Amino acid sequence: MCEACDSFLDRMFAKGVLHETGVDGLYGRGAAFEAIIDGLDRLISHLGGGDKAEVIRFPPGMNRALFEKSGYMKNFPQLAGTVHSFDGNEKDHMALLDAIHSGSAWTKAQAATDIVLTPAACYPLYPIVARRGPLASDGALFDVQSYCFRHEPSKDPARMQMFRMREFVRIGTPDQAASFRERWLERARDFAERLELPHHIDVANDPFFGRAGKMMASSQRDQALKFELLVPIESVEKPTACQSFNYHQDHFGSLWGIVTASGETAHTACVGFGMERLTLALFKHHGLDIDGWPKSVRAALTL
Amino acid sequence: MCEACDSFLDRMFAKGVLHETGVDGLYGRGAAFEAIIDGLDRLISHLGGGDKAEVIRFPPGMNRALFEKSGYMKNFPQLAGTVHSFDGNEKDHMALLDAIHSGSAWTKAQAATDIVLTPAACYPLYPIVARRGPLASDGALFDVQSYCFRHEPSKDPARMQMFRMREFVRIGTPDQAASFRERWLERARDFAERLELPHHIDVANDPFFGRAGKMMASSQRDQALKFELLVPIESVEKPTACQSFNYHQDHFGSLWGIVTASGETAHTACVGFGMERLTLALFKHHGLDIDGWPKSVRAALTL
Repeated sequence: MCEACDSFLDRMFAKGVLHETGVDGLYGRGAAFEAIIDGLDRLISHLGGGDKAEVIRFPPGMNRALFEKSGYMKNFPQLAGTVHSFDGNEKDHMALLDAIHSGSAWTKAQAATDIVLTPAACYPLYPIVARRGPLASDGALFDVQSYCFRHEPSKDPARMQMFRMREFVRIGTPDQAASFRERWLERARDFAERLELPHHIDVANDPFFGRAGKMMASSQRDQALKFELLVPIESVEKPTACQSFNYHQDHFGSLWGIVTASGETAHTACVGFGMERLTLALFKHHGLDIDGWPKSVRAALTL
Repeated sequence: MCEACDSFLDRMFAKGVLHETGVDGLYGRGAAFEAIIDGLDRLISHLGGGDKAEVIRFPPGMNRALFEKSGYMKNFPQLAGTVHSFDGNEKDHMALLDAIHSGSAWTKAQAATDIVLTPAACYPLYPIVARRGPLASDGALFDVQSYCFRHEPSKDPARMQMFRMREFVRIGTPDQAASFRERWLERARDFAERLELPHHIDVANDPFFGRAGKMMASSQRDQALKFELLVPIESVEKPTACQSFNYHQDHFGSLWGIVTASGETAHTACVGFGMERLTLALFKHHGLDIDGWPKSVRAALTL
């Protein structure tokens, strides 16, 4: 194997760190990859442990009606995935099998289910919080995780179509949301240093769709609503966002009707960890053989 | 809260063990639920640990082309989920938003992606094994896990649409496959006893579709190709399959071209653990408060 000429992704396939499926951005994960995911989860729990967040873990799909209400299709239609199923009788089934056999578009006949793939781990959370009624005076804090889907097939291993996102989500007054984000921006530097990853933090924007989306992105940057922890993985010029720090103002509070103890519309902020991206960053910078990683990094991951 | 009149599912919602999403069979998981999932994973690893299986973890979706080849749509079309995305321009996007706004069927315009939701954790495995070439003389053994999807909305909490399945998959000669299944049938009794769950093991069949499917199911039972570990959860009369023990003969070996060291078509067998169902069985039989569970059960789960 030629280390210099093979891509990082090819070397991970050869080593069994990831397993090819024939679809770009969709990979099986080997034992070493999962050991790092687990180690990162422990480290993140340790960093956020004093905050006493309520833990919720979501399946990879969410309620389509709530997804529609969320406005995701307005801003990021190109990334979303809806789940469709066969709802026909035996005759329809014969036609379906004929279509598969002849290589024609059998999926046209699939009917949308009530489920869409979750685009970000915090999306299913807000309706749950809204249903509970007004927040306590110290607001609320959640530790959520989900497999997420984004339809952007790519050879860049750091741009997977299905990946895990862990998030802490703060819901409360504007001050509570803002100070939560500040605290995690400070923790991010500590986090990246413990992992001995080259990094910097910069203002960023979400990939809003179309021409109107360009204005949204520009406004998001101007107001500094989003920051990212960037680590070079596939490219030094275009480093990869491995963590993001988002202040949504009253967007979700207003959308879902979440109110503070004093009856004001709640503000929200979240910090998201791209678990696969962080893992890839570690393999990129410390090598594909975990045994050869710096002792300090292994200790940070309690490996 | 009326313990006697509320359903098991309602009591889990009230206690935060599970969180309602508005879609039957789709739930958020609270910290206690996840602690049991983790404990079960440790116990299963312990039981199978001496066998030295290769660990692979899959994302919740698989390659659609491979899924088509697998024959799943022939046997279980009603359960499968295909993933669809928006692939239009800005004009199409305006029409899509209008459709969402007016409550019409916007999902019709979604185009099938290369991804379908994984129906069982071992489905993405076989093509990976086939690609590696002939098996070693002692065959191969895998420890796989995936979030799986089955489109069967239900109020029965043990019939989720999205759930985790862990599997050990044995690939080799007929003898290797058969003795693997025998070994796990023995371990199953030990497993259920450690968890102090009422249980029995019985021959079973998969939910094949339609009239032709009835014959498939009957043949599968006649040949005793599938056994299940059954535990009462929602009903004593119809206990829930929490574990299954499957001998596929040369079905997957022949389909994917997997051959043994001596060039014969490989036989396969798998043992699958329904992680959510096992967790629900434990909550059902030992109560919603983990602290009150028998010490021996907590010890088995290393809680």
